[in-house]
Amino acid sequence: MDHHKASKVVIITEKIIVEKVAKLIENAGARGYTITPAGGKGSRGVRSTNRANVVDEFSNVKIEVITGSKDAANRIADDVAEQFFDHYSGITYLEEVEILRPDKF
Amino acid sequence: MDHHKASKVVIITEKIIVEKVAKLIENAGARGYTITPAGGKGSRGVRSTNRANVVDEFSNVKIEVITGSKDAANRIADDVAEQFFDHYSGITYLEEVEILRPDKF
Amino acid sequence: MDHHKASKVVIITEKIIVEKVAKLIENAGARGYTITPAGGKGSRGVRSTNRANVVDEFSNVKIEVITGSKDAANRIADDVAEQFFDHYSGITYLEEVEILRPDKF
Repeated sequence: MDHHKASKVVIITEKIIVEKVAKLIENAGARGYTITPAGGKGSRGVRSTNRANVVDEFSNVKIEVITGSKDAANRIADDVAEQFFDHYSGITYLEEVEILRPDKF
Repeated sequence: MDHHKASKVVIITEKIIVEKVAKLIENAGARGYTITPAGGKGSRGVRSTNRANVVDEFSNVKIEVITGSKDAANRIADDVAEQFFDHYSGITYLEEVEILRPDKF
Repeated sequence: MDHHKASKVVIITEKIIVEKVAKLIENAGARGYTITPAGGKGSRGVRSTNRANVVDEFSNVKIEVITGSKDAANRIADDVAEQFFDHYSGITYLEEVEILRPDKF
């Protein structure tokens, strides 16, 4: 099967805003996203999980979006950062991936 | 330590077929795989998790396989898509990674 | 917003050493890390999860660190492997990512 370049946007942020982030992603035209539980320590120096329970408490989420459009990927990353990261902890970054069936993304 | 190029295959699909996908991966000669709980919304427009519980229900899995062989990576991605994705929700994509100890993969 | 190249180190290892790995990451100067629950099968042929419960038991963790310094990324990957992987199961690999706000990493 032919493979095609695509972009993955990764957003790690607080669980409490996941619905809003999902809506922003859908409005940007992406056809799907994946959510994974996440914990850790952020760049503000505020630990999102208790040291004692660092592996059992997942108060963050990792949201991943794959899109064939690099422009859409950039826009999602920029918009999430601008709309949410002044008030909520979060980071966002992009990766290049290869997809098999571009009609699914 | 020297670093070497390798390929990561990522498969996001329904929890119910994880055993079958794991077997396909092992038969392809990969020496290991990682499984993470996952939820989200797929390209069929069928939400795998309830809107109200989007972050607490993880009915999907994310399976990651790293292999030094790009051919094996392509074959795993193609075979998983062909064998399972007509009947189950799922996506698969590839990424380039750098590994330290090629004998472990 | 401008995007900048950065490195992601991924470490998949046993939950029991997550505190030690987190300390090593912090000592290397990284400003944060993300932890996700993980299960699977490793290169030693020792399955970390029971076959019957492969998707419900997550006795491993996936730790991800993003840093603007490729040297720091290499050092974290090398140090984790050297200090822990003779005695604990684990793999580590690196990916290239694009970040938006380098001051956060």
